[in-house]
Amino acid sequence: MDQSKHTATDSPLGVGSMNGGDAVYVIKIGGNIIDDDAKLAAFLKDFATVPGKKILVHGGGKLATKLAIELGVQQQMVDGRRITDAETLKIVTMVYAGYINKNIVAQLQANGCNAIGLSGADGNVIKAHKRPPVQATGIDYGFVGDVDAVNTTLLQSILAQDITVVLAPITHDNNGSLLNTNADTIAQETAKALSSIYEVTLIYSFEKKGVLMNAEDDNSVIASINPSFYKELKEQQVIFAGMIPKLDNAFAAIQSGVKQVIIGKAEELAALVKGETGTAIKL
Amino acid sequence: MDQSKHTATDSPLGVGSMNGGDAVYVIKIGGNIIDDDAKLAAFLKDFATVPGKKILVHGGGKLATKLAIELGVQQQMVDGRRITDAETLKIVTMVYAGYINKNIVAQLQANGCNAIGLSGADGNVIKAHKRPPVQATGIDYGFVGDVDAVNTTLLQSILAQDITVVLAPITHDNNGSLLNTNADTIAQETAKALSSIYEVTLIYSFEKKGVLMNAEDDNSVIASINPSFYKELKEQQVIFAGMIPKLDNAFAAIQSGVKQVIIGKAEELAALVKGETGTAIKL
Repeated sequence: MDQSKHTATDSPLGVGSMNGGDAVYVIKIGGNIIDDDAKLAAFLKDFATVPGKKILVHGGGKLATKLAIELGVQQQMVDGRRITDAETLKIVTMVYAGYINKNIVAQLQANGCNAIGLSGADGNVIKAHKRPPVQATGIDYGFVGDVDAVNTTLLQSILAQDITVVLAPITHDNNGSLLNTNADTIAQETAKALSSIYEVTLIYSFEKKGVLMNAEDDNSVIASINPSFYKELKEQQVIFAGMIPKLDNAFAAIQSGVKQVIIGKAEELAALVKGETGTAIKL
Repeated sequence: MDQSKHTATDSPLGVGSMNGGDAVYVIKIGGNIIDDDAKLAAFLKDFATVPGKKILVHGGGKLATKLAIELGVQQQMVDGRRITDAETLKIVTMVYAGYINKNIVAQLQANGCNAIGLSGADGNVIKAHKRPPVQATGIDYGFVGDVDAVNTTLLQSILAQDITVVLAPITHDNNGSLLNTNADTIAQETAKALSSIYEVTLIYSFEKKGVLMNAEDDNSVIASINPSFYKELKEQQVIFAGMIPKLDNAFAAIQSGVKQVIIGKAEELAALVKGETGTAIKL
């Protein structure tokens, strides 16, 4: 009989088992890089050279705040989180999914890296719902989305065409409204979802060289952290404030099948990819 | 021998001859619809029901002008065309590729139409170059792009997944800069490029019922125009001003293999698709 019936090319998208075991890098770019044209250009040049399949996830909060100020739209923050009212949603959509996303794509194209910029609404690539007001505190974060699922079929078909995906942290509620969504979470959820198909490395790049033993000393990078050490570090208050949600995201990823999770300095991306620097999150 | 070797599933993307002869609608949405939330919602509801493969092309000049005014960025127009300086490029990128594009996508998703919003930079889907200053007049339109080519491979792979493409009129110069590009031209170039693969119908929807014999009488729609009649209508000044570039675009499309080109009222999209109303452009 016709043996070719069971080959990968039978898939309607021509993808599927062909990609099994391929490596994919999901890289979250830190906010301080996005605000700085020269740093962003250098980062994207490095990113373009990362071999193989890759996804870049970005935010851009400071540029959104800048535009809000220019437009006289008052920004309300609660515990470092933005309350997204209708006017703010318009601003973050313009800044994240428009200005930042398309400029990153254009620069990657110029660096020979064919990239496609998507929000979570595009191709329904990230399914989300509007976060209800927090019962305990009564805080209503407004048009904020929490991720339900990642559409790996679409991502797979794009990655199979050697196109890099650039994800803006805007999702939709399936009722016609866009939603502002945390970029660290989008990176984690995307890495987790893809880990059933690929060997995924998730890199959180930011302004520090990694998780530091001493916040004042950039050379006190902790090489690796497992859950029990993490617990210890939190108890000793070595890890505190904004690092806790980032590390919670990192542990959620490694515990859900992501092969490697690394936290480190955006300027050292090439070394982070090779596992030569930064903090590795371990099971 | 194995006959399946020559079937469409041999294509690395699983696309190709499978789609040969399929119908594709390329629909340009008029600017007066985009400015009006209720009209836009009604249009997108109609658009979602257009059967089969489809591409929506939009602009959004009035919303860009509104944001420019709010930000105090002076807009310079020459012969109805915007001069795109660096600040204006930022604004049109935010408005076209961000706000309008993603809101259209979210609303199509809500109407059960899986859509993906792209600028020309995404996946390098539209190749363009920066328009040099016009020699005769010395006018420099700034960051304006003229289209060189449309990447049909990417469009094909998306359409084959039953995903509708929503195109924002922002392209890139392959040197890292984005470019503001005429949406009518993007619709025409996309329709032309796809006509080598599909049976393409190009619809320019706008505020009138079609090309009118008498600009004051919305019921004086000309049912069809061929090149000699077009020449006559221009000589008699029945067709003038802004209709000339639109019709030039329409004739360029029909003369390059696009199967049908129809100009008509956005509110009558369902009837336009069926060929029951509007002005048909003929060879």
